[in-house]
Amino acid sequence: MDNGAGKPVDPRVIQEMNRIHTETYGNPASFHNRGFESLKILNDSRAKVAGLINAEPGEITFTAGATEANNLGIIGAAKRNKKKGTKIIISAVEHISVINIAKSLSREGFSIETCPVDEYGVILLDELEKLVDDNTVLVSVMTANGEIGTIQPIKAAAENAHKHDAIFHTDATAAMGQIKIDVKDLDVDLMTLSSNDLYGPKGVGALYIKKGVRVTPHMIGGGQEQGLRSGTENLPGIVGMAKAAEIALAEMEEESKRLAVLRDSLIKGLLEAIPESYLNGHPEKRLPNNANIRYSYIEGEALIMDLDAEGIQISSGSACAAKTLEPSLTLLACGLKHEEAHGSLVFTLGKNNNRRQVEYVVDKLPGIVKRLRAMSPLTPEELR
Amino acid sequence: MDNGAGKPVDPRVIQEMNRIHTETYGNPASFHNRGFESLKILNDSRAKVAGLINAEPGEITFTAGATEANNLGIIGAAKRNKKKGTKIIISAVEHISVINIAKSLSREGFSIETCPVDEYGVILLDELEKLVDDNTVLVSVMTANGEIGTIQPIKAAAENAHKHDAIFHTDATAAMGQIKIDVKDLDVDLMTLSSNDLYGPKGVGALYIKKGVRVTPHMIGGGQEQGLRSGTENLPGIVGMAKAAEIALAEMEEESKRLAVLRDSLIKGLLEAIPESYLNGHPEKRLPNNANIRYSYIEGEALIMDLDAEGIQISSGSACAAKTLEPSLTLLACGLKHEEAHGSLVFTLGKNNNRRQVEYVVDKLPGIVKRLRAMSPLTPEELR
Repeated sequence: MDNGAGKPVDPRVIQEMNRIHTETYGNPASFHNRGFESLKILNDSRAKVAGLINAEPGEITFTAGATEANNLGIIGAAKRNKKKGTKIIISAVEHISVINIAKSLSREGFSIETCPVDEYGVILLDELEKLVDDNTVLVSVMTANGEIGTIQPIKAAAENAHKHDAIFHTDATAAMGQIKIDVKDLDVDLMTLSSNDLYGPKGVGALYIKKGVRVTPHMIGGGQEQGLRSGTENLPGIVGMAKAAEIALAEMEEESKRLAVLRDSLIKGLLEAIPESYLNGHPEKRLPNNANIRYSYIEGEALIMDLDAEGIQISSGSACAAKTLEPSLTLLACGLKHEEAHGSLVFTLGKNNNRRQVEYVVDKLPGIVKRLRAMSPLTPEELR
Repeated sequence: MDNGAGKPVDPRVIQEMNRIHTETYGNPASFHNRGFESLKILNDSRAKVAGLINAEPGEITFTAGATEANNLGIIGAAKRNKKKGTKIIISAVEHISVINIAKSLSREGFSIETCPVDEYGVILLDELEKLVDDNTVLVSVMTANGEIGTIQPIKAAAENAHKHDAIFHTDATAAMGQIKIDVKDLDVDLMTLSSNDLYGPKGVGALYIKKGVRVTPHMIGGGQEQGLRSGTENLPGIVGMAKAAEIALAEMEEESKRLAVLRDSLIKGLLEAIPESYLNGHPEKRLPNNANIRYSYIEGEALIMDLDAEGIQISSGSACAAKTLEPSLTLLACGLKHEEAHGSLVFTLGKNNNRRQVEYVVDKLPGIVKRLRAMSPLTPEELR
């Protein structure tokens, strides 16, 4: 139940990729049949990925993943449009890659402002409105948070940014394949897309760049991807992402319904079975696969190790920030204290999870919490 | 015979990757068994790639390909060590990505000098010696040129750079799996490694960073790869590259001998069968898979289209620069005139090529050249 950290690749995707690895291994830049065939497949893939978010094919630039798309989108747009302004606004619950990219830009003459969120992790739109001004070049608010599951009011946030002609970027990584995304309706300028979150291969992603929006390339070289992203195209990976997008478009609605039922039964089961346990993130505006629950008096890491011993794999926050052992910045932004943030568990369900597994977790976790609380000096007498 | 533009992935590599896609899809940063298993596989893969070039595992940083490794190595080293100096020297026959990266640095306060080459494309070491000074921060000379096949005197070039404490980078992309590379013997500081050139997957590569050499990260985010390259590790791709490196280490010597025999019979056959045809690149210091031959009075593009119609796929230069339709910068650097550069064909042999195919090309090409020359107003009467 740690699908947010990594997902298995759909076998139908692997089948498509294997064909490219051995048969259509031509370079889309080559002037012969094998090259033309590769170029056609590249363009078809672009159209499929565009289709998932209602974009035009020409608005999709393939990258090596969501992190690179964030680098290209945020650094690229900020540098390219520096004359417009030097203020960048990000939400307080962004992924570590967006936070660190913003930090890097603060060393290059940009000022970074953070838009606060409410207790559920939803950005405060009135605060955003106050922050955006004519000197604002870029606003970046994620589509949904993969750690607490909260879905953001992207359309309203983009509108706020556009009032002052700022570019609006959204990192849709965690939302990929979970909720319907329509870039035309949301009216965003840049959107980071991930492949593995769609059960596609790792090492590939894309940036949606609305027609007319200008960015400076991040990867310099042979000028592939209309000059925006150099490097020989990872055609098998791109084809895999496209197939995953196609599958998501066809199956997402049904699968999301199934996951939401599992999620609700997991949340309900765990909150009922364990005293002093609380749901993090928004109770309704929430990704269908996410349950984030905190337990007083104990550490998430200890819980995770004990659950692992029972064959249950989950996370204490974003895997990408796990190595720091710091409390989750997202939970702190929601107003939680350090010790509350430390006692939180992230369940991210996926295609590989079922009702039996949810019941197993609801069966196992209460005993583990009880045992760990009994060992904690912080636990009050009545919970021991 | 266009393996320089793209290679099929070895079926043994695909088998390894498929296992990771579906079974070991954990995030190496996760604190549970599936994560630990992924981390172990990541480290094992690092050791295998290091083994191919006699490096230490900790000296390998995985990237999304050779272009990204060039970006990280050249931009990263130049920026990180700007206090040492602001002069960057590249050879006149570098890949387009190195050329364009150098150009981008010239807009950030660095001065770029180009080291000339002789008629075979070999860098002039005495010219390099004159160019390197105490203000030189970085020298970049490719290990071998994928277009003309010429192998460079890297060890001597690195020695020249080190006399003035400059960092030495080499792009080994075209040399990968063709010739033995020992970073300890060559004493280089940074080396760009490619996976697909080893019959590994596209979309993955690595940068060798000698212990103690400092570079600024190019991709910013969660701090993966010891903070040098952010973004969730593309574990299937990395495992694929590692398997390809392992296979290359075991089979390269024999395969290179086989390719050199094919190459020599292709060169001999074509030069003998067609008047006014010439070999580009060095006759001996040459990659075992490369034949680059020029024909007077005709255009490479026309030849390529006619050969394609006969089922023969080759290139007129570097695929990565094919779209520009400009004459090859590498051939111009060797002293060729524009029209000579335009009439050149690049054959890059691979595992998928055999003696029968070489004979087929030697059989077909003379007639095509004759026909095209008959149509060219430049062709002298005696060749019509």
